[in-house]
Amino acid sequence: MKISELGEFPLIARASKYFSSVGMQNPDVSLGIGDDCAVWQPSESSYPSVLLTTDTLVEGVHFLQQTVSWRDLGWKSLAASVSDIAAMGGVPVVALMTLGLTGNESVEAVDQLFAGATECAQTFGVTIAGGDTIRSDFVIVGWTVAGTALAPDRGPARVLRRSAARPGDIVVVTGWCGSSAAGLDVLLRECGGVQSLVLAHQRPLPRVREAQWLLSRGIECATDTSDGVFESCRLIAEASRVQVNIDARVLPVHDDLVRFAREESKDYALYGGEDYELVFTVTPDALSDLLEEWGRSFELPLTVIGRCEVLPDGVQWVTVAHSPAGIHRFSHFGSETQ
Amino acid sequence: MKISELGEFPLIARASKYFSSVGMQNPDVSLGIGDDCAVWQPSESSYPSVLLTTDTLVEGVHFLQQTVSWRDLGWKSLAASVSDIAAMGGVPVVALMTLGLTGNESVEAVDQLFAGATECAQTFGVTIAGGDTIRSDFVIVGWTVAGTALAPDRGPARVLRRSAARPGDIVVVTGWCGSSAAGLDVLLRECGGVQSLVLAHQRPLPRVREAQWLLSRGIECATDTSDGVFESCRLIAEASRVQVNIDARVLPVHDDLVRFAREESKDYALYGGEDYELVFTVTPDALSDLLEEWGRSFELPLTVIGRCEVLPDGVQWVTVAHSPAGIHRFSHFGSETQ
Repeated sequence: MKISELGEFPLIARASKYFSSVGMQNPDVSLGIGDDCAVWQPSESSYPSVLLTTDTLVEGVHFLQQTVSWRDLGWKSLAASVSDIAAMGGVPVVALMTLGLTGNESVEAVDQLFAGATECAQTFGVTIAGGDTIRSDFVIVGWTVAGTALAPDRGPARVLRRSAARPGDIVVVTGWCGSSAAGLDVLLRECGGVQSLVLAHQRPLPRVREAQWLLSRGIECATDTSDGVFESCRLIAEASRVQVNIDARVLPVHDDLVRFAREESKDYALYGGEDYELVFTVTPDALSDLLEEWGRSFELPLTVIGRCEVLPDGVQWVTVAHSPAGIHRFSHFGSETQ
Repeated sequence: MKISELGEFPLIARASKYFSSVGMQNPDVSLGIGDDCAVWQPSESSYPSVLLTTDTLVEGVHFLQQTVSWRDLGWKSLAASVSDIAAMGGVPVVALMTLGLTGNESVEAVDQLFAGATECAQTFGVTIAGGDTIRSDFVIVGWTVAGTALAPDRGPARVLRRSAARPGDIVVVTGWCGSSAAGLDVLLRECGGVQSLVLAHQRPLPRVREAQWLLSRGIECATDTSDGVFESCRLIAEASRVQVNIDARVLPVHDDLVRFAREESKDYALYGGEDYELVFTVTPDALSDLLEEWGRSFELPLTVIGRCEVLPDGVQWVTVAHSPAGIHRFSHFGSETQ
């Protein structure tokens, strides 16, 4: 069987089977495969847990030279890894760059890449401390980011996990859905005029402060929307063994997205990736206080999009009421589960 | 100007200029660009420093399908990053994988990759705790490894640095030089019969225990030979602002390499990469005790290959007495300094 027939998630499951068989599996390392970051809590230590994540963008697969400037590529490639730290409620601290170049790039272009990455690092308080340069037949930009979990008291790390949702929990998303994917299409069609979408695509803002705030308010379950809201819900559902039921009608879409995509806007919202918003769950009792307090701290909207239920027989992780046609689904290796 | 005209090290210098300009440069992060790992010593913490490194192998650039099996690729790709931790005298703990596949690979092949990586992880006590799968037009295998520096006492991290050599220091190398590069040529020419070289190429052994031992014996300066002994000496010379003078005649080459390459064996030894031995410096006073103690702990040979001198006017970082022709030099982006 080929990898393209197997699909991405079964591939990860196979990797996980091998890697977790390691006899000397370190008890200090938790979560690992199956959440946004690996968590390493050194024993006999008062130090907060170390969070680790890595993300790589490949030219032609994750970006096209005509839709992203070198400077924006620097920003958005680093933002993708910073968002993984945010999705755990952590503090990003150190970044390492992996840079694959053909050699035909101009020095000025690559300087712009460094400048954009530096802007992102400054914005989120990250120090870029090394990396690896490689020759490659197309451009590769990858970032490893390490950070700390909040609450440096002894005991297990406090992080936002995908696996902490319970039946009855309310599902909430920050900000707007689908803007980045729509921004890409704006650029590809060269139709212009919807700057907020283009900006969402080129200069995404990982929700680092917002996630830390949620963690400090007792929220336990979250992930980011790097592969779209539908996928975020599926990841939470599968990790938590619940069913997540969302209502497509209430998905928050920016006015510009409605103007650009009209009846397709909910497709973008459900399946469009690279948004880096947070999807999290909260108990019904805590919901109204949380919404009120949030409103005093952030301008970014919070939107209730669904609810967790007991997982029925015959697994369907996510249901979408009033679902659109589903035209923007993206898969790394071709086939796709559910 | 193109990147291929600029060359790899000036590229890294440019990146460094941007990344170190970040206003909020974290005082807890040291070394960074310019050594084998970034070092992150969290303040207000009794925790030993965190070491971070990342290394990526690209098909066609760093490996060919016909010269390395999937299983060996799993091993050697992880070994490259483990060696960076070893080069600092640290303890490797956690690894994240970056895996780029076309989708046309067989599932069995990729299982072998996971199995080989698992073997390497087991051998060096590393837990593989996550990663990133991407679609790519050729195979990419990258590893981020995080570890700890030895000596968890308060105060600055104790690590082996490239920058700690002083004039008068003796330069020493572990094991054999050039075996891996020669092993690759054995495979390419399909001449067979020199299994030790092939093994060095396919199953390199990072010197993790050896480096920790050296650090515990007071050695301060080291790097690995991932880009060959000549390059290791240049990195130490440049970081320490000394001149390193080596004698090509004394470079330790395995009998199999002499049999395979005859008069070219010193070329392999100087410029062949992917050996993952250690080059370190020691004061003349400490040398004989160190050699004797080493001999009681390890079977691997230690060889004195040169000496550090005061850097003369008109920078020449490395001199090679009795130098061979120099046919195996490798550069990532075409042009090369010195």
